[in-house]
Amino acid sequence: MNPASRPRGVYSPVVTPFSSNLHPDHDRFLRHCRWLTDQDVGLAVFGTNSEANSLAVDEKKRLLDTLVSAGLPVERLMPGTGCAALTDSIELTKHAVASGCHHVLMLPPFYYKGVSDDGIFRSFAEIIERVGSDALRIYVYHIPQVSQVPLGLALIERLLKAYPRVIAGVKDSSGDWTHTQAMLERFQPHGFDVFAGSETFLLATLRGGGAGCITATGNVNPAAIVELYRNWQAADADARQQALDDIRAVFAKFPMIPALKAAIGIYSHDEDWGTVRPPLVALDAGQRAALKDALAKAQFAMPGIEAALA
Amino acid sequence: MNPASRPRGVYSPVVTPFSSNLHPDHDRFLRHCRWLTDQDVGLAVFGTNSEANSLAVDEKKRLLDTLVSAGLPVERLMPGTGCAALTDSIELTKHAVASGCHHVLMLPPFYYKGVSDDGIFRSFAEIIERVGSDALRIYVYHIPQVSQVPLGLALIERLLKAYPRVIAGVKDSSGDWTHTQAMLERFQPHGFDVFAGSETFLLATLRGGGAGCITATGNVNPAAIVELYRNWQAADADARQQALDDIRAVFAKFPMIPALKAAIGIYSHDEDWGTVRPPLVALDAGQRAALKDALAKAQFAMPGIEAALA
Repeated sequence: MNPASRPRGVYSPVVTPFSSNLHPDHDRFLRHCRWLTDQDVGLAVFGTNSEANSLAVDEKKRLLDTLVSAGLPVERLMPGTGCAALTDSIELTKHAVASGCHHVLMLPPFYYKGVSDDGIFRSFAEIIERVGSDALRIYVYHIPQVSQVPLGLALIERLLKAYPRVIAGVKDSSGDWTHTQAMLERFQPHGFDVFAGSETFLLATLRGGGAGCITATGNVNPAAIVELYRNWQAADADARQQALDDIRAVFAKFPMIPALKAAIGIYSHDEDWGTVRPPLVALDAGQRAALKDALAKAQFAMPGIEAALA
Repeated sequence: MNPASRPRGVYSPVVTPFSSNLHPDHDRFLRHCRWLTDQDVGLAVFGTNSEANSLAVDEKKRLLDTLVSAGLPVERLMPGTGCAALTDSIELTKHAVASGCHHVLMLPPFYYKGVSDDGIFRSFAEIIERVGSDALRIYVYHIPQVSQVPLGLALIERLLKAYPRVIAGVKDSSGDWTHTQAMLERFQPHGFDVFAGSETFLLATLRGGGAGCITATGNVNPAAIVELYRNWQAADADARQQALDDIRAVFAKFPMIPALKAAIGIYSHDEDWGTVRPPLVALDAGQRAALKDALAKAQFAMPGIEAALA
């Protein structure tokens, strides 16, 4: 791969808007994605924060089609294509690659627990072999607190040895800096791109030679996070990181996914944005008011969101 | 519902055979299901032990079609229809009901962790409302060590109040007898049927007024488990329970799903039965030999399996 075309920078696991009857809302989704790419945030659609695992494979394929047909840049898309079922992961990954989205973020199969590295390796291997595309680049997705299926260093090393071109990097959402650091030291120098799983570790990841971050709050605070990415070597980088942390702390007082959607609703004056699919629950009126108040106190803004989503 | 038609007795989460290229093997599946129903074991297809969450919804629909078309009794089927994605659960449940399978076993959505009872309730409620069938009967599936999403007593009580006809019972695979006992005492007298999640608790469950068990080892030891169910009030019931426990202990020394499939392969002289989908891994030659030896020492047999699967 041309190194220049490798994903870098800030990506957002794009939240998926739903209509009141819980169907994916393609129009709201497209507008939000455009607002993000206009600010140079890449689209890690179908991540944990996208409620991706509450969506059927066909729903995800149609949402991806909407973005690609609308001309959003495929090189800035990194769809999540790892499902519980092997056949679902293969189908969705094939569709992504056929749509021109060669970079995918891939969860391991997440229903069975206590599975061996052999089994997880075999899962990735079967997907890679059956998708059968030289263009495919997989970023493995380590989020053990949710998937309950960790991707350890030994497994990543084995995957890299077997598929050095396909296995392209990782999103580390463990929140365990020691683990991120180990991957930065062992694998990043060999072209395995480490993305922090939140902007909390953006500066540290860039200082460690990493590629950037893929972060929930990229949905709501894109400009400021991109600014730190662009200026991480500037004198005020630590202050910028602190400012990002302060905003994240406001969201972290609430359930993250409902809070992200509520904030988009608040700042775009479109309360329907708050809808989530079960098993998640939208913020109630009290929580929504508290979030609004806390964000105002933090002098938070979402410049351009109202026009973008109108 | 006519009480006589309510599911009772011994069910097996039927293992799903795969061809060497990992496609579901409909012919082996049908033969195995016939062998089970011939011994009065009900078919809880698409359970955890069926590798159901490694199968796409379409694969499950086609497997169910094979059984129903072949004339297997729909009243002895209890397909698992709970998926991670709301839309998948609705689609698969609708298909089961349309096929005449009115009793389904339902996992809660299992990707997101730490979700509230409100969210899990809302998930079941949306499925019930959107399937929209008076015939639907749901057995909720409590297996917190795998799903990581427990179904507590307060949630079950709330579901029973809201949907007293639809919410028909539970499979309790927690292995926590205190939990099973609490449901037997609080809910079973009101027509909520408690199935133990393994034969380990079969006798205790029946003595507590429960409906039976849904057990992995029903795949390999059906006759003996059914014998205890039929004779649970006999003087030798405790000895029968102990004999079942001894056989289960042999299987429990190995990874359960690969061991069940390996045993079917050993006793039917069809080694291909051992194939599993990633992330599971088949027993290796050494494990297979050890299992064979341990089962022989335990004087284990699978009467009729060779003719049934030939």
